[in-house]
Amino acid sequence: MGRWQPDARGRLAKAALELYVERGFDRTSVAEIAERAGLTERTFFRHYADKREVLFAGSSELRDVLAGAVAQAPESATPLDAVAVALEGAAGVLEARKEHARQRQSVIDANTELQERELIKLASLSETLTDALRQRGVDEAAAGLAAEVGIAVFKFAFRRWVDQTGERELAQFIRESLAGLRAVTADA
Amino acid sequence: MGRWQPDARGRLAKAALELYVERGFDRTSVAEIAERAGLTERTFFRHYADKREVLFAGSSELRDVLAGAVAQAPESATPLDAVAVALEGAAGVLEARKEHARQRQSVIDANTELQERELIKLASLSETLTDALRQRGVDEAAAGLAAEVGIAVFKFAFRRWVDQTGERELAQFIRESLAGLRAVTADA
Repeated sequence: MGRWQPDARGRLAKAALELYVERGFDRTSVAEIAERAGLTERTFFRHYADKREVLFAGSSELRDVLAGAVAQAPESATPLDAVAVALEGAAGVLEARKEHARQRQSVIDANTELQERELIKLASLSETLTDALRQRGVDEAAAGLAAEVGIAVFKFAFRRWVDQTGERELAQFIRESLAGLRAVTADA
Repeated sequence: MGRWQPDARGRLAKAALELYVERGFDRTSVAEIAERAGLTERTFFRHYADKREVLFAGSSELRDVLAGAVAQAPESATPLDAVAVALEGAAGVLEARKEHARQRQSVIDANTELQERELIKLASLSETLTDALRQRGVDEAAAGLAAEVGIAVFKFAFRRWVDQTGERELAQFIRESLAGLRAVTADA
């Protein structure tokens, strides 16, 4: 194995996810992940703090996409409009790695500790949205509420996207869920 | 100490919360909780599986209140109306133990592991609402969405209630947040 390892990080992530799906997260070791990727444990730990981090390293990209989309939403956009644009942006990222996203979710669904970690991630994405909205001049209460509700919509749409038997896009589920939200709140 | 221990469970919970606030959750042992309550460790473990459970034993009451309120909401109530009634019911429970709820939250805010557990609790309350709505004949998608959004509103309102310097009731924050939700979605 040469010292130059093209996309070691990506190979490790792919190997890890394969093993988590095959054997379960708890029954997979870092040594096995490194071996499957044709790399050393030392290389693994240069890229990831632990085997859990492999599943959550994408969070920072989602955060950046959400924050960037909110910042760039048209000035006339309401807080929820801005959140909607941001969620569609995040949907684009996940759509591009659809198989990964679905396999990852099946691993998380099978493990309570990972479910907890995933909820923490979603809570941090809500904070990201809140901060981005406040930077647009949205007052704190409206920002927090639009962000919390936006993440609730995202969570709901994401679950439907993962569970579908068809091939509809996440962005479509998000648009439907936002429309559903409007219908639900208008009725009441 | 006699064998008959009036409200041992309540005394243990009170002692535990006091100690968590004074010393922090991690620096409190079951032995110290039992001592503060004037009881034995054995008695503690008859009531609680561990020191974390003391903080989450109230979840089942909240679940019952939410499910009961949704079931009893008028037939004409929309899914979000039914969720609103349920959240106000839960607010009543928390309002009755306001000081406890606030102290408990300060303990949770200081500890990442407890924050994760609290998010799991909220996710399970969302499932409770979904199930209760489905039993009213609400279709799965509308039930899931109203429940997720309802819990987002609750989380938001609860945080404002805990952080307030005044003495306004949680139910009032919930009503305001639901009104805010309607405003936010109508605008968009």
